[in-house]
Amino acid sequence: MRIALDAMGGDFAPQAVVEGALLASEELSSDIQIVLIGREKVIHELLHTHTITSSSIEVVHAEEVIEMGEHPTKALSQKTNSSIAIGFGLLKAGKVDAFCSAGNTGAMHVGAMFSIKAIEGVLRPSLASFVPKEGNKYGVILDIGANADCKPEFLEQFGHIGSIYAKYILDIDNPRVGLMNIGEEEQKGTVVLQAAHQLLKNNPNINFIGNIEGRDIYNDKADVVVCDGFTGNVILKMAEAVYTTMHSRGLEDEFFAKFNYEAIGGSPILGVNGNVIIGHGVSSPLAIKNMLLLAKRMAESNIHIKIKQALAG
Amino acid sequence: MRIALDAMGGDFAPQAVVEGALLASEELSSDIQIVLIGREKVIHELLHTHTITSSSIEVVHAEEVIEMGEHPTKALSQKTNSSIAIGFGLLKAGKVDAFCSAGNTGAMHVGAMFSIKAIEGVLRPSLASFVPKEGNKYGVILDIGANADCKPEFLEQFGHIGSIYAKYILDIDNPRVGLMNIGEEEQKGTVVLQAAHQLLKNNPNINFIGNIEGRDIYNDKADVVVCDGFTGNVILKMAEAVYTTMHSRGLEDEFFAKFNYEAIGGSPILGVNGNVIIGHGVSSPLAIKNMLLLAKRMAESNIHIKIKQALAG
Repeated sequence: MRIALDAMGGDFAPQAVVEGALLASEELSSDIQIVLIGREKVIHELLHTHTITSSSIEVVHAEEVIEMGEHPTKALSQKTNSSIAIGFGLLKAGKVDAFCSAGNTGAMHVGAMFSIKAIEGVLRPSLASFVPKEGNKYGVILDIGANADCKPEFLEQFGHIGSIYAKYILDIDNPRVGLMNIGEEEQKGTVVLQAAHQLLKNNPNINFIGNIEGRDIYNDKADVVVCDGFTGNVILKMAEAVYTTMHSRGLEDEFFAKFNYEAIGGSPILGVNGNVIIGHGVSSPLAIKNMLLLAKRMAESNIHIKIKQALAG
Repeated sequence: MRIALDAMGGDFAPQAVVEGALLASEELSSDIQIVLIGREKVIHELLHTHTITSSSIEVVHAEEVIEMGEHPTKALSQKTNSSIAIGFGLLKAGKVDAFCSAGNTGAMHVGAMFSIKAIEGVLRPSLASFVPKEGNKYGVILDIGANADCKPEFLEQFGHIGSIYAKYILDIDNPRVGLMNIGEEEQKGTVVLQAAHQLLKNNPNINFIGNIEGRDIYNDKADVVVCDGFTGNVILKMAEAVYTTMHSRGLEDEFFAKFNYEAIGGSPILGVNGNVIIGHGVSSPLAIKNMLLLAKRMAESNIHIKIKQALAG
């Protein structure tokens, strides 16, 4: 297995990325190759400053870098030798099994849509994340930011795709899907949510348990939390703020520590023909390491093929 | 000053309500009268079981009770002798300065709209709550559940009305208004939020600081958090869940304790011609007490008159 990693992506790149790759290489079995994409010279220098050396790290040169603030489409079309462009080139050609970056989120989206493209039948690819649950479990939440405005059918499909993700990545059998809403009754919430509720309820591929509320985010009611990208983004950033505020107040707790973005590592784009993970802009070495471990799980389970089969089937 | 309280409203009524009224009467000055509305006999029995007696508690008999699950409009039109109907009657007649209930939320809304009515110029009355902020401060968040679907103009007006509320209830001079969104840039978020951003920015009555994000919920960026009732409801219930989960894990902290609904007491309906506060269904005596203390602050500051003047001006 080969996992590509944008060495130039993120506020603390390339240092933090290279360190994260080294941390991951210590945990991953030797048949897993990490492919660092970026300025060869800088990467090699960084690799050499570390006592840990790893034969499972390979470097692919990329002359250009898409900066965090650049316009995604424009940057991708102009910087064909950027680490992101080259990463998607390798992924599309099947030379790597996953591509991860903590760089320009928009460029990662556009890159995925224009190279490996959306799976046929996918209405809108979405970004997913994990939510820690009571009882040392995890759940899936999607969308967390790719689609602020959602039609009811998008939400229905998030429920379906999220179920497949929860099944193969978290090993949850017949995952329970909940629709984030402001009350349990099916007529609650926005017009879009009322319609989405009916679609989810009537979809035979989804184990729909009904509406859930903000208070259910940490409990064990649902394994898959369905919401539009606006709501999911607010929830996730608020959960991060809870962790940060607790940390700054000297409150340490293993449950809330799971909300630290570093523990989650990155968010996959679900619904495209390949394994693509986007990391937090501020990614630390630990976050990069966990992004790579997630990429490995995704590649191992062939999650995008599973999604494709489910939608075809 | 006279504050009416629905003795029959809430999951633990009338016991918890009567106890809360007694707690409040200990803290309020003797010229503030609490008017308990409900079944006289039961209320008197409860009052007599307590050693604390208070001359500042008065009982107004109401034969009927609107139950939590009843249809608001139907219940109000049929149960004209219910505690909620009688409470709004007293408020409309000017016989009380505020009306509080932890009962049927829908009936409280409908009751307010049909008795004291919306202030002229108010597009949609909203529900507000407090959010604890860094540095021992509080901010205001609205809407937290009255309007799941919002037009841009509604959000603009929430910003204006929320500013007045923050100014007179929290004593914040020139409150900073933030729009809950998924990025700082003004083109971020849903179509509705993009339009709302422009309206807020161009409104001379609003000290708009721009978009804020889920991660800013606890920090000191904005004094007034503007969002639709869906987003606000999810945020508030999630904040409650943070408190509950922390509490259950033995983590006690005075900052997060402020997220306990009991500390906040209740949510005012802003934009109607009178002081109306809705409490949490599970209200404890402490929550009832704090709801009454909030009612006092609202009545003292004549907040609904201030809102009316601002909208007329």
